Amino acid sequence: MNCCKRTLAFVTCFFLVLQLTAQDSLNVYPSHWWVGMKNRNLQLIFYNRFKNLSVDKGVIQSAHPAIKIKKLHKVSNRHYLVVDVEIAANAKPGKYKISFGGIIRSEWNHVFFELKPRSKQNGKTRIQGVNSSDLIYLKMPDRFSNGDAGNDRIAGLRDQSLDRSDYFKRHGGDLKGIQNQLDYLQQLGVTALWLNPVLLNDMPDRTEHGYAFTDHYTIDPRLGGAKAYHELIDSLHKRGMKIIQDAVYNHTGIEHFLYRDMPDSSWFHWWPQYTNTTYKDQVLMDPYAAAIDKKRMSDGWFTGVMPDVNQHNSFVANFLIQHAIWCTEEFGLDGWRIDTYAYNDLAFMNRCNKALLDEYPQLHLFGETWVHGIPNQSYFVRNKYNIPYKSNLPGVTDFQLNLYGIVPALTQGFGWTEGVNRLYLTATNDYVYTDPTKNVLFLDNHDLSRFFSMVGEDIAKLKMGIAWLLTFRGIPQLYYGTEILMKNFADPDGKVRLDFPGGWPGDAANKFEPGGRTPAENDVFNYVSTLANFRKTSTALTTGKLMQYVPEDGVYVYFRYNAQQTIMCVMNASEGEKQLDLRRFAERIKTYTKARNITDGTIADITGRFRVPGKTVWVGELQP
Amino acid sequence: MNCCKRTLAFVTCFFLVLQLTAQDSLNVYPSHWWVGMKNRNLQLIFYNRFKNLSVDKGVIQSAHPAIKIKKLHKVSNRHYLVVDVEIAANAKPGKYKISFGGIIRSEWNHVFFELKPRSKQNGKTRIQGVNSSDLIYLKMPDRFSNGDAGNDRIAGLRDQSLDRSDYFKRHGGDLKGIQNQLDYLQQLGVTALWLNPVLLNDMPDRTEHGYAFTDHYTIDPRLGGAKAYHELIDSLHKRGMKIIQDAVYNHTGIEHFLYRDMPDSSWFHWWPQYTNTTYKDQVLMDPYAAAIDKKRMSDGWFTGVMPDVNQHNSFVANFLIQHAIWCTEEFGLDGWRIDTYAYNDLAFMNRCNKALLDEYPQLHLFGETWVHGIPNQSYFVRNKYNIPYKSNLPGVTDFQLNLYGIVPALTQGFGWTEGVNRLYLTATNDYVYTDPTKNVLFLDNHDLSRFFSMVGEDIAKLKMGIAWLLTFRGIPQLYYGTEILMKNFADPDGKVRLDFPGGWPGDAANKFEPGGRTPAENDVFNYVSTLANFRKTSTALTTGKLMQYVPEDGVYVYFRYNAQQTIMCVMNASEGEKQLDLRRFAERIKTYTKARNITDGTIADITGRFRVPGKTVWVGELQP
Repeated sequence: MNCCKRTLAFVTCFFLVLQLTAQDSLNVYPSHWWVGMKNRNLQLIFYNRFKNLSVDKGVIQSAHPAIKIKKLHKVSNRHYLVVDVEIAANAKPGKYKISFGGIIRSEWNHVFFELKPRSKQNGKTRIQGVNSSDLIYLKMPDRFSNGDAGNDRIAGLRDQSLDRSDYFKRHGGDLKGIQNQLDYLQQLGVTALWLNPVLLNDMPDRTEHGYAFTDHYTIDPRLGGAKAYHELIDSLHKRGMKIIQDAVYNHTGIEHFLYRDMPDSSWFHWWPQYTNTTYKDQVLMDPYAAAIDKKRMSDGWFTGVMPDVNQHNSFVANFLIQHAIWCTEEFGLDGWRIDTYAYNDLAFMNRCNKALLDEYPQLHLFGETWVHGIPNQSYFVRNKYNIPYKSNLPGVTDFQLNLYGIVPALTQGFGWTEGVNRLYLTATNDYVYTDPTKNVLFLDNHDLSRFFSMVGEDIAKLKMGIAWLLTFRGIPQLYYGTEILMKNFADPDGKVRLDFPGGWPGDAANKFEPGGRTPAENDVFNYVSTLANFRKTSTALTTGKLMQYVPEDGVYVYFRYNAQQTIMCVMNASEGEKQLDLRRFAERIKTYTKARNITDGTIADITGRFRVPGKTVWVGELQP
Repeated sequence: MNCCKRTLAFVTCFFLVLQLTAQDSLNVYPSHWWVGMKNRNLQLIFYNRFKNLSVDKGVIQSAHPAIKIKKLHKVSNRHYLVVDVEIAANAKPGKYKISFGGIIRSEWNHVFFELKPRSKQNGKTRIQGVNSSDLIYLKMPDRFSNGDAGNDRIAGLRDQSLDRSDYFKRHGGDLKGIQNQLDYLQQLGVTALWLNPVLLNDMPDRTEHGYAFTDHYTIDPRLGGAKAYHELIDSLHKRGMKIIQDAVYNHTGIEHFLYRDMPDSSWFHWWPQYTNTTYKDQVLMDPYAAAIDKKRMSDGWFTGVMPDVNQHNSFVANFLIQHAIWCTEEFGLDGWRIDTYAYNDLAFMNRCNKALLDEYPQLHLFGETWVHGIPNQSYFVRNKYNIPYKSNLPGVTDFQLNLYGIVPALTQGFGWTEGVNRLYLTATNDYVYTDPTKNVLFLDNHDLSRFFSMVGEDIAKLKMGIAWLLTFRGIPQLYYGTEILMKNFADPDGKVRLDFPGGWPGDAANKFEPGGRTPAENDVFNYVSTLANFRKTSTALTTGKLMQYVPEDGVYVYFRYNAQQTIMCVMNASEGEKQLDLRRFAERIKTYTKARNITDGTIADITGRFRVPGKTVWVGELQP
């Protein structure tokens, strides 16, 4: 007991016996940390899969004041030890010994916990954040490009499938493949990549989507592991491009070691019999909701193989938050897309977001909000409501401007609340958001039917969607393959997750190259490329204000503008040409007399009546 | 000039000549006021239709300190004089002389402005307010019952039509007719009447709806005038019933004297060429709206014969506000329904609402919000938004729970956001309102297709709607005739404004009497009556909380409850019977074991599985 009475700042002791054998491995989560972080209080989880880390006897102590041991927590599963430490403000990079007294085998009587220097690029943080100046490209790593055939199957993992003819098997795409196509993406105008999750999914099947983590601290080796992820991100950053990681806080894969060898039962949510979430976000805001409905929504399992994590457990919360910070620092992430946002414990999400933003104010965080209604979506993001739950999430995937926006705009006839009026109406409700420009716009994603199919494989309408995506408020996100006319309805979802043609050796066509694309595909590719590359330097489109006019006669007119530049967008969703009297838009047209069509370079007179062909979004920069 | 230097508190003077002849009449608005009002600052408008009230010479002065003249305003049309006065706090009831010096004809050298004592009922104010304990019955006075054939046509009014076969002509209904049917209404369970407007509409045609005022201070003589209105309201109040008046601040009829003989052009909104409102409320909240779109919405005319009033003009604003207070005090109104709420100047509306609520805190004010979307509707009522425009309106006509609530619940199949899920989803969004119980629920009204037609003339569905209306949160409003199966689609609107059968002598059937109703009509009448009369004394239904459960399998279950009483409502919108396991509702069922069906008195076991027939809202009071 004597050791416990010592009060040296850097040595705190607990009774401890680590009984370990040669085949054991002792893991620490997080695996390392950094000096100079704002967050200097860490909760380390020591884990050995086979042996008890008994705390009955012995001590744990740090050999150096860089790491101060503050508290040891018992958990009922003795494979785990949880230790609170504090990193000294003046700690230098290095490997610091943490010793376990009374340990039998000499190789396990200590670990070296590394504090790394923080990475810089040109003397500044690598982490740029993602904002409305970007164009995000979403892709599923298994389905884009196979850069390393050697990692298509990894011995020892449960899923040994490799079958490109099956939607739900692995196809072999990887991070190296993505890295190989950065020229293509840059030519397209992309500035940021959002990859579906890259963490290890050691599940028996359906590992292609990546949303069932089994080890947070391992990048899936079938994608190339941490090395390939570092290399991809370094390549991106060298090009001025950015990376967004896909976070899943709500659940794990059922094969996660934290589930299979649970620290204690309170790490997950349990039910007398299997209970799925209701997927009903409404109960979270509903002033009339029943307790059982709230519990089913938040604590029900997302699927039978995705156990629901108990974020009320502070160890769990710390593990998840520290992992998010760790990934951000380790890989230099610019943003996080947060999966199934509404299903998380929302108090936990606020704490997690705050921890990330305290450390990285420029980081972008946006949550998946596949919900129905502006009051529903806005509840989960920074908003203008005076209500007890105040979300601190900066942005969301703007499902409302998809489901009740661009999709009905291009698939419904013009009505009082239909067609382009529906899109307009949804945008007018932006007043409830604190900053709607942080929301992510999209035509489709890995869960939705591909936009090209949604608009009846009508290339004119596809281009309308693209023009809207690249000119409206918010951060545009393109789903891979939209630019080369990939299609299908999401039934099953595997049909919208097909391989990018040309991403595999021997593919019949290579659509990464102009020669591999059909004229129609080149037309759409060039359309995206022209607008997206114009957008890169257009201050009006990236940071300018929006002004929109009440749609009339099936035509919706909006402007993006600032003191330097004005862009006029005329969306004619009708089949036929429309004429409009531009004098109505005098507030924005001012003394401009001409407009240069961004997509074809033609110059139009804008002093009087103006003709817009049917099924067109006419995008023009105003000129004197 | 000397007189202007006098500083007696009750005499202020201005140069004035009233040139009047015998056939002239000098009107004052408001026509009288009351002692003991909080609002003691009045702006009197003196008006003579034929003669100038010149202010070049002479004086205006009050003979008694009860009325202090504060300021005289010139207006460009000299038929008008605007005079600010202050009523002394200790003024006694009486007629107080206001003199005009220098006036030619003796009969016009003074007026007596009356200050009346405030009316009381049993020593208390007559004004009870309207709240969720009430059942409002909306009717069009011209179409309900003709109590006085002598006023069907009034000589001198422009509309001399009287043709019950034409939707758009006058039919002869009046206030006396309504008064004659109070037993009927009370038996039905009604506690409050909302009449479509009763002010004079001296328009050439379409005077039946009443929304085109031509003189604010005259109750339409075809309805019986002020005498009949007083008598009706006194009868209502004696029965403990209430009255709601329909306010139209946004526009007048084009034959209004204030338009035909305008004080000056700034009293109305003008356009280079006729400009209708866009009816697009969205521009008012849209952060991206163009100035011209806002102006067209707010200042465009409601129709070509309804000039848009300029509420920015302080004379106009004062005129409207004083008139609202005047009507409330004069007739003892319990509430105001405010027409075309979104079309008004919203700053004016806040000022007007505040003036009314300052004087009558118990008064209910609810605005017509025929808009699309919770963010749209909630913008116009007290809400939880931190935004520059904060509405102070207590309640709205809850169009969202109609258009996106009970109507789809009973006309759509059950889907993720359809059918009863749509109703449920809309109700979950109540979190954005400050007090949603002040909103007015309805199945239909004078502008909408009749609910019986909307549900395919299916009596089971009509009863479902009625059960919902009388058990959900808010203030229920029934449209006349729903209880006797009146039907039709609102195309044109006249088809939903038919005469109540039996309201006219010689009508083929008198549906005010059980013998005049078909068995189906009696069935529905009795259904309303049973539920509405139960509701009168049900604290759970009138002031209890609401708890609702996520709909499952087409069944939507909600409870109204307080410490004393619990009412369970099971809405099965499916065609067939459903069974449900009531254990899911344990949070509300607690230890109750039985439920008494309110509509048929049967007792049901609620300890296990529960069967609900198709197309039923099962309403039961829980019992031990």
